Amino acid sequence: MAGTGYRVAIAGATGAVGQTMLSILEERDFPVRGVRLLASERSEGKTLTFRGEEVKVEKLTERAFQGIEVALFSAGASRSKTFAPAGVKAGALVVDNSSAFRMDPEVPLIIPEVNPEAAFQHKGLIANPNCTTTVTVMALKPLHDAARVKRVIVSSYQSVSGAGTQAIEELKQQVLAWAKGEQAEAKVFPHPIAFNLIPQVDAFEDSGYTKEEMKLVHETRKLLGDASMQIAATTVRVPVWYAHSVSVTAETERKVTVKEARDLFRKFPGLCLWDDPPKAQYPTPLMATGKDECYVGRVRHDLSSETGLNFWVVGDQLRKGAALNAVQIVELVLGVTEQGTGSCTTSN
Amino acid sequence: MAGTGYRVAIAGATGAVGQTMLSILEERDFPVRGVRLLASERSEGKTLTFRGEEVKVEKLTERAFQGIEVALFSAGASRSKTFAPAGVKAGALVVDNSSAFRMDPEVPLIIPEVNPEAAFQHKGLIANPNCTTTVTVMALKPLHDAARVKRVIVSSYQSVSGAGTQAIEELKQQVLAWAKGEQAEAKVFPHPIAFNLIPQVDAFEDSGYTKEEMKLVHETRKLLGDASMQIAATTVRVPVWYAHSVSVTAETERKVTVKEARDLFRKFPGLCLWDDPPKAQYPTPLMATGKDECYVGRVRHDLSSETGLNFWVVGDQLRKGAALNAVQIVELVLGVTEQGTGSCTTSN
Repeated sequence: MAGTGYRVAIAGATGAVGQTMLSILEERDFPVRGVRLLASERSEGKTLTFRGEEVKVEKLTERAFQGIEVALFSAGASRSKTFAPAGVKAGALVVDNSSAFRMDPEVPLIIPEVNPEAAFQHKGLIANPNCTTTVTVMALKPLHDAARVKRVIVSSYQSVSGAGTQAIEELKQQVLAWAKGEQAEAKVFPHPIAFNLIPQVDAFEDSGYTKEEMKLVHETRKLLGDASMQIAATTVRVPVWYAHSVSVTAETERKVTVKEARDLFRKFPGLCLWDDPPKAQYPTPLMATGKDECYVGRVRHDLSSETGLNFWVVGDQLRKGAALNAVQIVELVLGVTEQGTGSCTTSN
Repeated sequence: MAGTGYRVAIAGATGAVGQTMLSILEERDFPVRGVRLLASERSEGKTLTFRGEEVKVEKLTERAFQGIEVALFSAGASRSKTFAPAGVKAGALVVDNSSAFRMDPEVPLIIPEVNPEAAFQHKGLIANPNCTTTVTVMALKPLHDAARVKRVIVSSYQSVSGAGTQAIEELKQQVLAWAKGEQAEAKVFPHPIAFNLIPQVDAFEDSGYTKEEMKLVHETRKLLGDASMQIAATTVRVPVWYAHSVSVTAETERKVTVKEARDLFRKFPGLCLWDDPPKAQYPTPLMATGKDECYVGRVRHDLSSETGLNFWVVGDQLRKGAALNAVQIVELVLGVTEQGTGSCTTSN
């Protein structure tokens, strides 16, 4: 089967993540025998290009998964709940990018570089973690393996593309309006995002935390297999197109020196150390955009604790934070091609 | 003297902070008998408007302070070191917004709402704190008084105006270039700032921390009179025009409930509680721009510690973070008008 390739479906194909899934399948030369692009009625009949050919978008229904071997979902939690079981029933390996099944104990939550072994316990369905969580955990994992991370404090700087294509358009329209001396309405976000910050990503829970902040708590624990890890997050939307950034304080059980941390980061697959302050070398969202790797820099001792480290991680959340990671999971489970990302272009 | 007013000089009058100082003197109806606007040779002969009259900008020299009773400095640390002593010698009360004298044990470092008593120990010169520090300490102070803050972790989101008028222009040019499908150079900042983040504010020290991050450590301790407070910061430049934001984790000696913290914040002069998540009410830089008060919201228990709180503070750093605070210091020491800011417009 691998010789001739797999029949792949993408549910939510016209969204920001769905489109990236399609281009990543192409970039990585994933063995595709046929691709079925699924979306809501609204997008039915649109076309997207795959390997030079136009592919029509079909309506997402339960029947659409007949004959499908790999199904990538990024159509929101409620559609995943409705349609992912149909994909599993049809015999497909389903990788779901929504939050619908992430905390289900029956469903593995996977970053291939972090917990690949858990992927093989799947029952047809594997969950792809939250984008900010993935970027953060890519740096926490090597520290945790070496010295056990006990406590994590994260402040995020999340790009608009994390809220979808309409959010990208909203920032664009607000900036273009500003250039003309006008004002454009906020519809996707609760406040203007151009030249502003919104300290709210997703809805609030009663505790005062947002769902996004709690995903970071719960999913990090599941990914690292450590329910005792103490985690708190503040997630903030920033006027950046692509790539999420996180400012992290991590306290470990034993003290990890900056040199050791840098070595751990440098060696971890999928993570690039980009940390040479005198040369103004540190990760920025612009440099990480379109890259497969997550970038870590500003590595230093936490001045407020004995065994803490502070660092700054940036990753393209449409790629490693979503579409790339989903495709990597499929590669891992099916044993096709490499699950790794390219090599780092950093010299330190 | 107060009846007829004071002879006031502003050193660095054409800068972002200097211009704001001038307009704040006017807004607050500070008793000014005459104003002398001082700047580098480059700005000599320019004019600025004060109370409807054009005032010529003169060259900043030692002689310029003859007859001056109040001198506000915001011309950079090296010019303050050179010229502030001349202001003191001329008998003026000098308030310096640069970092030149802040950590000098002979020089009080003052936020009028935080440590007014220390202002009266001045020997002619009072230092105005770093802008990010002021915004952060406005929220730390009531917590510290009530329950002693032991540890503080700050991630900042700092607007371009904190880097001066040229930085504002750089963001503007980069955004206008983007609108035309072009690219504009980065000169003021080491990387493009439009649609990007730069995790570097000011120069790096050998420790890997920036000077800005270390100002937050040292100045917070001096302002709160507690050298044992453990503080770590990550300071980040964001594509926002005005107002700095900080995501703060503060651990106190005894546990402070969210309700108590909100009450403490609500009652603290100059600080507005703006914290009603279901209504999407929390501080943003756009809403804080042009305001005298600092705004605090997103108040919640730190999920990663027993006695920690997480919150989000935003303040217009040209006003409370710089020019307003300097004028308030003068009002306090000279006993003229009120040092307070307006009342909050929040309903919670």
